[in-house]
Amino acid sequence: MPRTEEANQRLREAQRAKILDAARKVFARKGWAATMADIAAAAEISQGLAYRYFANKEAIFNEVVKQAVQSGYSRLQRILEMPGTPGERLELLVSRVFENRRERLEFFQLIVQAFQDEATPEDLRDLLRMQSQTFQDVMRQLIVEGQATGEVADGDPDQLVLAVIACLNGLSSLALRLPEKFKNHFPEPRIIMRMLKP
Amino acid sequence: MPRTEEANQRLREAQRAKILDAARKVFARKGWAATMADIAAAAEISQGLAYRYFANKEAIFNEVVKQAVQSGYSRLQRILEMPGTPGERLELLVSRVFENRRERLEFFQLIVQAFQDEATPEDLRDLLRMQSQTFQDVMRQLIVEGQATGEVADGDPDQLVLAVIACLNGLSSLALRLPEKFKNHFPEPRIIMRMLKP
Repeated sequence: MPRTEEANQRLREAQRAKILDAARKVFARKGWAATMADIAAAAEISQGLAYRYFANKEAIFNEVVKQAVQSGYSRLQRILEMPGTPGERLELLVSRVFENRRERLEFFQLIVQAFQDEATPEDLRDLLRMQSQTFQDVMRQLIVEGQATGEVADGDPDQLVLAVIACLNGLSSLALRLPEKFKNHFPEPRIIMRMLKP
Repeated sequence: MPRTEEANQRLREAQRAKILDAARKVFARKGWAATMADIAAAAEISQGLAYRYFANKEAIFNEVVKQAVQSGYSRLQRILEMPGTPGERLELLVSRVFENRRERLEFFQLIVQAFQDEATPEDLRDLLRMQSQTFQDVMRQLIVEGQATGEVADGDPDQLVLAVIACLNGLSSLALRLPEKFKNHFPEPRIIMRMLKP
């Protein structure tokens, strides 16, 4: 029986998703050195087939970033809607973000580079800017709510937000520079959380 | 009465010190964009005279860095010899380092760049590496002693050291990128210190 157009469409989407899944892993491991050949191998397809879905690795990277931002938004939204106190939601947010960063250092490094690179499409940069701003806004909101419940230390909430973000960025770049040291001594999120505790 | 050789020597040393003082301020304010003309103007001498003491601004910068490292060592030594508990000395160390970094952001940025620059003389890079290692060693030692007295949170001391250093580096680069935001919301050292508290 010949495949219907609908079945073909489903197949194409599944194939595309498989390439993006593979690309995420390969970019996270190899950074920008990843090639189409690496991505195709990880997706267990031929390079020729990969090129039928994406013009080049830049196109794959853009799509991977867009999906990462989307899923970042959903995660933020889910955290905001969780039951529990603001302090508990804040703790969840900070620990998730630090763990996520730790597990995907190379990929984040790639995003930082893409952001600074003039060649990166402006819409992608806008997306990254908004994502970063939203993360800060959500953290700030939880900090203010947590200060009201007494779960978060008093003081200028913006100082607290900046301290956490500085730590996150500082850890990422240090860990990339000193991978051996960080393999064994990457600070646990609860150390960072103490900055926010009364 | 003609000046004696000794008096001349003293004069030369005073002049040299004046140029280095001026250079420290100019580098801290303007970064690597600082010129010999800026430095001479800040030292209130002619450019010609400045060139009699230093071949170029690289030579001045190298000397400024060497002196900064030297005085960093003395400050570390003084903190280690202070009366009080390990926790108090650690608090002093962290707050001094963060305040110092905050006040001299541009200068530290310059040092980071010099460190990464292949053209920087190897002896200067060794000096910076040793300085950074000594700072980490001293902090680690105070953390371990503070854990013994119960003033510092339990857990892997290296994680605590890395968390503080990451925060320091992250704040420096963020503050350089977002000067307006940091003018009003630079996190106080006591926020950082909370990471180390039980």
